[in-house]
Amino acid sequence: MNSPSTLLSIDQIVEEYKTLQDEICRGLEELDGTGAFEQDLWDREEGGGGRTRLIRNGALIEKGGVNFSHVHGPLPEKIANKLGFDPQTEFHATGVSIVLHPKSPHVPIIHMNVRHFKIEGGAWWFGGGIDLTPIYFIRKDAITFHQALKDLCDQFNPDWYAEFKAWCDSYFFLKHRNETRGVSGVFYDRMNESRGAMTDLQRFNMGLGRLFVPVYSKIASQYKDLEWSEAEKDFQSLRRSRYVEFNLLFDAGTKFGIDSGGRTESILMSMPPIARWEYDYHPEPGTREAETIENLKPQNWLGL
Amino acid sequence: MNSPSTLLSIDQIVEEYKTLQDEICRGLEELDGTGAFEQDLWDREEGGGGRTRLIRNGALIEKGGVNFSHVHGPLPEKIANKLGFDPQTEFHATGVSIVLHPKSPHVPIIHMNVRHFKIEGGAWWFGGGIDLTPIYFIRKDAITFHQALKDLCDQFNPDWYAEFKAWCDSYFFLKHRNETRGVSGVFYDRMNESRGAMTDLQRFNMGLGRLFVPVYSKIASQYKDLEWSEAEKDFQSLRRSRYVEFNLLFDAGTKFGIDSGGRTESILMSMPPIARWEYDYHPEPGTREAETIENLKPQNWLGL
Repeated sequence: MNSPSTLLSIDQIVEEYKTLQDEICRGLEELDGTGAFEQDLWDREEGGGGRTRLIRNGALIEKGGVNFSHVHGPLPEKIANKLGFDPQTEFHATGVSIVLHPKSPHVPIIHMNVRHFKIEGGAWWFGGGIDLTPIYFIRKDAITFHQALKDLCDQFNPDWYAEFKAWCDSYFFLKHRNETRGVSGVFYDRMNESRGAMTDLQRFNMGLGRLFVPVYSKIASQYKDLEWSEAEKDFQSLRRSRYVEFNLLFDAGTKFGIDSGGRTESILMSMPPIARWEYDYHPEPGTREAETIENLKPQNWLGL
Repeated sequence: MNSPSTLLSIDQIVEEYKTLQDEICRGLEELDGTGAFEQDLWDREEGGGGRTRLIRNGALIEKGGVNFSHVHGPLPEKIANKLGFDPQTEFHATGVSIVLHPKSPHVPIIHMNVRHFKIEGGAWWFGGGIDLTPIYFIRKDAITFHQALKDLCDQFNPDWYAEFKAWCDSYFFLKHRNETRGVSGVFYDRMNESRGAMTDLQRFNMGLGRLFVPVYSKIASQYKDLEWSEAEKDFQSLRRSRYVEFNLLFDAGTKFGIDSGGRTESILMSMPPIARWEYDYHPEPGTREAETIENLKPQNWLGL
């Protein structure tokens, strides 16, 4: 699995992720109908930079980011200690990261990330994930989403879907609320030569990236013309505050970004436009709000 | 300093903090004019519990919490490791914790906390702090606030104000934004027998607690009848999102609460009713919004 023909250079991976960002932005503009991405280019003092792309006040997307970044340089001390490398080792981290906050409470929040990490002349790995966070729980959408992920995983390894889905269940979990963030998806990290050839692992990441627009469009477009009430919008703000709690309390990507002196506005593009906290909120039993909260737990969506 | 006459039992400290909570709630109801505290009593499975008191939709306070808690039992592993004690050592943690989110953007957010920590038959210490977070910066209010804190500190130790103010500057700091949370205040921790007699350190905590209502009333009551615009309310939501970022990314009390399996709704009573994130926000130069952001840095308020 280490033959030179299965290795990729950082430049090749960087180019593929940039292309992926372009494709996803085009696909989302088409889905949205009126919104267009604005771009901020930024440089990181110690090396590298990124292309932050934001869409605001679209027909479908209230606030969304599709970010590419490639940062490199000496490994920041806090991160070196955590990973068990010498500080000052040269590293590269590159990836595409997406969070979309739709306007309609009928349309779920979605997150996706594909990434590659490499120590100069040493270890490398891939990571990634996608998860869907409905405001209002709809079982058939969770099934559609997971079936698409299983179909992708099965093209690479028949065990991956079950493994990465379980990883996602435990990763996107708000322990202080005993709630999953949403209906899960897949999550994976530290995918190195023990898991497959570099070319195959990158193909898997690109496969996930290219799945993003079609699967989200399939789910979101069902609700494009559905109106909503003030109360439904309020419930959306409350569900969004759980999203804030997860990202700021627990998310490893956010921590890595903050600890590595990343660009704050790009890291925190994941924050919703508005969030609402209500002390000790409990929905009325039997409502769609209650049904949603009850379903925020790991579930075997595909009956496997 | 270790003579028995200067030692206090947990029961004595607990009683004083309960009395303090009662006094502060009465004082805040008087200041607010229309709002009244609701109370939730809760028990912690491993030992102890608390009295969470919330005020909502008052004339002055949109959402505020004044919490008392006394939790005890075996030290949770994560906290034991951090503090360098054996897990399963019996601990007591008791204190009063306050965050007020006023309705008017002319009135600052305020936080206060006084606390006592004790290892059964071993180490003990006091901690506490207070800090003021204006939506719109007003220098004279920062001076009023700091002068009151200096006057209190000076009654105990002439060096404490400078030390605890510097501690507060560095504690309530959002490194990812290079901004202080507000105009600072005082912060202190691990105050044990090396800092004074137990009775004196508790008197200091109670002194801070009893300063809270008068100093906040003096500042807040100036703006009680001042109207505000939609744009000012929007800026408040944005400043509140910085408050959320600090508490969830950095606050040690929030982390301790979550890690020790504390009561989530009591820990997160510090969250604002509404927060707003706007990508790459920069106020127009020369506006009061710009003046505020420029002043979010450590300052020598009293010209010392």
